[in-house]
Amino acid sequence: MTDDRPLTPLLDRVAGPSDLRQMPDGQLAALAKELRAEVISAVSETGGHLGSSLGVVELTVAIHAVFNTPMDKLVWDVGHQCYPHKILTGRRDRIRTLRQKDGLSGFTKRAESEYDPFGAAHSSTSISAALGFAVGRDMGRPTGDAIAVIGDGAISAGMAYEALNNAGAEGRRLFVILNDNEMSIAPPVGAMSSYLSRMYASEPLARMASLAEGFESALPAPIRESAKRARQLVTGLTGGGTLFEELGFQYVGPIDGHDMGQLLAVLRAARTRATGPVLIHCCTVKGKGYAPAETSADKYHGVAKFDVGTGAQSKSGGGAPSYTSVFGRALTDEAARDERIVAVTAAMPAGTGVDRMAARFPARVFDVGIAEQHAVTFAAGMAASGLRPFCAIYSTFLQRAYDQVVHDVALQGLPVRFAIDRAGLVGADGATHAGAFDIGYLGSLPGFTVMAAADETDLVHMVATAAAHDAGPIAFRYPRGAGRGVALPERGKRLEIGKGRIMAEGSDVAILSLGAHLGESLAAARMLEAEGIAVTVADARFAKPLDTDLLMQLVAHHRALITVEEGAMGGFGSLVMHELARRGAFDKGLIVRNICLPDRFIDQASLSEMYADAGMRAEDIAATIRNALAGRAEVVPLRQVR
Amino acid sequence: MTDDRPLTPLLDRVAGPSDLRQMPDGQLAALAKELRAEVISAVSETGGHLGSSLGVVELTVAIHAVFNTPMDKLVWDVGHQCYPHKILTGRRDRIRTLRQKDGLSGFTKRAESEYDPFGAAHSSTSISAALGFAVGRDMGRPTGDAIAVIGDGAISAGMAYEALNNAGAEGRRLFVILNDNEMSIAPPVGAMSSYLSRMYASEPLARMASLAEGFESALPAPIRESAKRARQLVTGLTGGGTLFEELGFQYVGPIDGHDMGQLLAVLRAARTRATGPVLIHCCTVKGKGYAPAETSADKYHGVAKFDVGTGAQSKSGGGAPSYTSVFGRALTDEAARDERIVAVTAAMPAGTGVDRMAARFPARVFDVGIAEQHAVTFAAGMAASGLRPFCAIYSTFLQRAYDQVVHDVALQGLPVRFAIDRAGLVGADGATHAGAFDIGYLGSLPGFTVMAAADETDLVHMVATAAAHDAGPIAFRYPRGAGRGVALPERGKRLEIGKGRIMAEGSDVAILSLGAHLGESLAAARMLEAEGIAVTVADARFAKPLDTDLLMQLVAHHRALITVEEGAMGGFGSLVMHELARRGAFDKGLIVRNICLPDRFIDQASLSEMYADAGMRAEDIAATIRNALAGRAEVVPLRQVR
Repeated sequence: MTDDRPLTPLLDRVAGPSDLRQMPDGQLAALAKELRAEVISAVSETGGHLGSSLGVVELTVAIHAVFNTPMDKLVWDVGHQCYPHKILTGRRDRIRTLRQKDGLSGFTKRAESEYDPFGAAHSSTSISAALGFAVGRDMGRPTGDAIAVIGDGAISAGMAYEALNNAGAEGRRLFVILNDNEMSIAPPVGAMSSYLSRMYASEPLARMASLAEGFESALPAPIRESAKRARQLVTGLTGGGTLFEELGFQYVGPIDGHDMGQLLAVLRAARTRATGPVLIHCCTVKGKGYAPAETSADKYHGVAKFDVGTGAQSKSGGGAPSYTSVFGRALTDEAARDERIVAVTAAMPAGTGVDRMAARFPARVFDVGIAEQHAVTFAAGMAASGLRPFCAIYSTFLQRAYDQVVHDVALQGLPVRFAIDRAGLVGADGATHAGAFDIGYLGSLPGFTVMAAADETDLVHMVATAAAHDAGPIAFRYPRGAGRGVALPERGKRLEIGKGRIMAEGSDVAILSLGAHLGESLAAARMLEAEGIAVTVADARFAKPLDTDLLMQLVAHHRALITVEEGAMGGFGSLVMHELARRGAFDKGLIVRNICLPDRFIDQASLSEMYADAGMRAEDIAATIRNALAGRAEVVPLRQVR
Repeated sequence: MTDDRPLTPLLDRVAGPSDLRQMPDGQLAALAKELRAEVISAVSETGGHLGSSLGVVELTVAIHAVFNTPMDKLVWDVGHQCYPHKILTGRRDRIRTLRQKDGLSGFTKRAESEYDPFGAAHSSTSISAALGFAVGRDMGRPTGDAIAVIGDGAISAGMAYEALNNAGAEGRRLFVILNDNEMSIAPPVGAMSSYLSRMYASEPLARMASLAEGFESALPAPIRESAKRARQLVTGLTGGGTLFEELGFQYVGPIDGHDMGQLLAVLRAARTRATGPVLIHCCTVKGKGYAPAETSADKYHGVAKFDVGTGAQSKSGGGAPSYTSVFGRALTDEAARDERIVAVTAAMPAGTGVDRMAARFPARVFDVGIAEQHAVTFAAGMAASGLRPFCAIYSTFLQRAYDQVVHDVALQGLPVRFAIDRAGLVGADGATHAGAFDIGYLGSLPGFTVMAAADETDLVHMVATAAAHDAGPIAFRYPRGAGRGVALPERGKRLEIGKGRIMAEGSDVAILSLGAHLGESLAAARMLEAEGIAVTVADARFAKPLDTDLLMQLVAHHRALITVEEGAMGGFGSLVMHELARRGAFDKGLIVRNICLPDRFIDQASLSEMYADAGMRAEDIAATIRNALAGRAEVVPLRQVR
C-alpha cells in the first residue's frame, strides 16, 4: 500500500510539535490537510478509531502550535482521537503499527511518549487528571499548563461533572476544550463563532461571556435563533449564563473546530490571558474531510482496514456469530416471552447487542448515556418494582459501577441481571479494555450468582437462566469476538443454579474450566490423552455458587485439579481453593494449579497473540499439567506475581 | 430513662402513615412537634444521626400525609435521616434499638419494612432508584408514585447528576425533593417561599417557574436580592432557568421545610398536577428544634448517647487513640517533612483525619466533595505531575472509584497512596459501611502494593512507607476504632516492601495474619500453647507483594498454615493460596485454613458482637486450629458459602 500514500511535504518536515511553532499560520492549515490524509492512509491499513481522529485534526495542530507541549500537559479524554496527535509527536514512523502487538496503542499512553502525560481509554477522566497537573504546577512541579480535550458525550458523565465542579471551585488556570461533534456547525453559527473568535483575540478574556450574549441579541432574528440554539444545545441552558460559567469557568465559544484561524486566535488569547479555568467550546465534525466517514459517523467510529478510494471496509471472516449478537438475539427472545424484562445500556446499544431488543421493544430498552453508576442503581430500582432488568455493560466498564453493584444490588439481594460482555482479553483495544477482574469483584459478594458461558449455546441458556432468576443478583460473562460455531438452541433453557457439567472423562487429571476456554481445555485433554494421560474436563458454569459436589468428586477421583479461567488472580481459582481449604481437601495432598491471567497488564495484540502471551492456549494448559504430574510446579508461562 | 420520655398524645395514636391522612392539617403540625421530641429522646438513648433526622421531621410527616405510602415509593437518600420515618411507619416500638444488634438499622432497609422500598447508606443513589420505580409503575408493576428525598450535598455527586439527566430526558412523573440544609432560610426567603407555595396551590404547575421569576423581580430590592441569592445558592445559576429545569424538571421552591402548611400545599399540588419530573426545593435546618444540634450541626451529625437537657454527649472510654487520629498525625508529620505530599478527601476531612493536615497545610489538602471518582483520578493527575498524593477514602466508599483505581492509577502505575480507613467490620453503621472487599479488589491489580496495619505503630510506619514509595500505587488499610494502645514511634520508618515479620515462634502451626487481627492471632497462639500446641505467628504486613520467603518458610516448618484477615473471601487468603498452588506446596499435603469474613453481610452490632458473629475472635481462631490438627475441616464458625 506504500505506493498509495499521500504526498505530505509539510508533514515530512515535522519531527515534533516544536516545529509547528515555527510555521506561519497559513502553513498550519495546509499541514492539517496533510495530517488528515496521513491519518486516513494509516487507518486504512490498520483499522481503528477513524472518525474521532479526523474530527480533531485542526484542533490537534492548533493545540501543539500554541501550547508548549510536552511541558504543557495535554490530556485527551478517552484517547481514541489521538492518531493525529501521535503522528505529530514523534510517532509517525510507527503509526501503521496502531493497535498491533508491540505497536502503538490505540489510545494515549504514558509509557509510549512524554507527549502522553496521562493515558486514557475509559471516558470522562481528563478534567480530573488535568486539574491534578494544574495543582502540581501551582505547587512547583516542573509542569506547565494543563489542557483537557473532552467530547460532548464524555462531559455528560457524572465523573466529568464532579471534576468541573471541583475545578471551578479551585479557580486554578486550566483549559478544558469541549470537542462537540454532535452538532454540525450551520453557517450562521460559523459566522457568529468567527466573530466571537475575532472579538476574543482583541478583548480581555473576562469580557467575552457578556460579549457573546450581546452579540447574539444584535443578530438578525433567524441567525440569532440559530446562534442561540447552538449555545443551548451545548450548554444545556436557555438562560443567560452557561452551566460552565455557573461552575466557575470562563466560557468561550462555540467556535469552528475546523477553522485554523479561529482555533489559533482563541487558543492564543486564552493562553495569554487566562487566570482561572476556561472552557473553550469547539464544534467539530466526526469523520471530517473523509466523505465515507462524515456521512456515516457511526459506522466509521471504529473501522476495520478499508479501501481509501471507496471507503469499503474489509469484511471479517464470517464464520460463527459473535457472542454479542447471540446475547442480543437471546435477550430479545426472552423479552418477547416476558414483558417484565427490560434492558439498560450505558451509551452502548450496538456494542452490547441490546439494539436488537430496542428495535423490537423500544420502550423497554434504556440507554442512559455514559452513566454506569446510574445505570446499575436504576436497574436495581426497576428490579425492586418487580421488573426483570438486564444490565448490559462490558466487564471493564462495570468497574465504574462497582459500588452500586455492591451497595444497591448485592446488599439488597435485588435480582438485577448483569450481561458482562468483553470478559477476558479483548485484542486491539488492549489492557484498558480487558475484562480481567469481574469474577473476583463479583464472586466475593454474598448472594451473587456468577456464571460464565463456555460457548454461545450456553450463553443462550444463561440468558434464560438469568431471566427466570428472581432470587438475587445474577451475572453471566462472555468474551469478545466470535463464538465457537456450535448450533444454537431454538430456545434457552434454565440451567440448574450452581451445577456444572462433565464434558470428558479421564482418571488422572481433572480440568475444571469456567467460561470460554472450555474449548482449549478439551483440546489440552486430547493432547495429553495421546501421551497416555487421561483427563476429565468439567465446565463449572458457575463461579458462584460453586458446584461443590462436582468439585469434591473431581478431587476424590483424580491426582490433580487444574482450574482454568480467563480472568485475574482472585477469581474462580480462588473460590475453588477457598472451598478446598474449607473442606480440608489439601490436608493429605492435592496437586492444584490455577490457569488464569498473569499478574500483569497485557498490551494490545491479536487475541491469539494475547492468549499465547498469557499462557491460555491448549498447549499451555497441557504443559502445565505435564509439569504438575512430573512434580514440577511451573505453570506455563511462569506466572510472575509481584 | 423511661420517666423522662416526652408526652406524645397525638403520636401515640399513629400506628402508621394512613393515620396521618385522617388528621386535620393543624394536628399534623402538632404531631411533628411530638415526633421531634420522640426522635430526640430516642437518640439520646441510642446515639445516631440526630441532626439530619431533626431537619426532616415536618417533611417526613407531610410526605406520608400526602402520598400513599407504601404503595407510593419513598426513597430517602443516604437514609440516615430516616428516624422520624421509622417512628411513623410502625417501628416506634423498636426505635430505641437503633443501630444495635438485632435492632433497627440506622438507615433505610428493605428487609425491615415495606415502607423502605429501597435501602441506602451510601450517598446519591435515590434518584436512580426512584426512576426505576417510576418505570416499573409505567410498565404496570403494582407501585404508585416515586419520591426521592436527597440532600444538597448528595445531589452534587456525579451519580445524582447522571440520574437527574436521565430522569429529565425520560420525562416520567417523578418527585425529587431537594432537602437543602446548608442554607438557613432568612425571613425574606421564607416570605417568598410562603407566597410561592400559596401561588403554587392555586396555579397550574407549569406556570410556577415563571411565577417565581416574576415574583422575585416585584419584590423590594433588599428582599429581592435575598430571594435571588437563595435561588442561586441552590440552583447554582444566576440566569433565568434553574439547572433542574434545563434538565427537564419542573422546579418548585424554595419552600420552608419546617412550615407544615407550605409543605402540604406544595406536595398536594405537585401530587395532583405533575405529569413529568418535579423537583421540590425544600429548605431545612439541620438539627431543627434542638438547640445543641442546631447551633453545632457538625458535631451533632452523628452523636453518642447524650443528656437531653444539657446536650452533653457520653464520652467514649478514652484509652488508645483511634487509627484515624494516628493516621492524621502521621500524615501531617510526613507532610511537614515533604512538601510534595498532598491529601485528597471526598467530603470527609474529619472522618478520615486529614483535617489535622488541613489545619496546618490548608493549601495541600483537597476536599473535592462527594466525588470519589474525581478524587482518585485527580490524585492520579497530581501523582503524574510529581506530587505525592494521599487519597484518604473509607474502604466502602473507595468502591465508588474502583474503575478509576484500575484504569487511571494501576494501569499507569502511578504512585497514588490510598489510606483506607474503616477496613473490615464497622459496628453500628452495619453492612452498608463494612470495608470487606478492598484486599480482593486491590490485590488482583498488577503492580499494586497492598498493606494492612497490625496496630497503630505499624500504621505510622505504613504512612512513611507509602510517602516514600514512588514505584507505583500503594494502599494501606486499617480498621475503625481505637488502636491497641501501643506506644507510638517518634517518626515512622520505611518498611521493606513485601516483607512480613515473625511475632512468635512455635513448631506445630503457623498463623499468617494480615492486619489488625494480629492481636487475636497472638492470643489464639497463647491459648493453644497452654494445650501443648506450639504456634508461630507472623504478621504478613503486605497482601501484595507477598513475602514468599516467609510464606515458604512457614510452610516448610509447620504442619498447618492458617491465614487471618478481616476481609471477604478472595483477598489475602486467596493470594496466599495462589502462591502455594503455583509453588506446588499443596502437592504433598498441607493443612490450610482461611479465617476471613463469612460469605454473608453482617448487620449492625457492636464490633465485639460482630467479631463473634464472624468468627474472628481469638477463641475462634484457636478452635479452627484445633479442628484442623484433629483432621476436621471446620472453620469456626462454619462458614456458609453459597
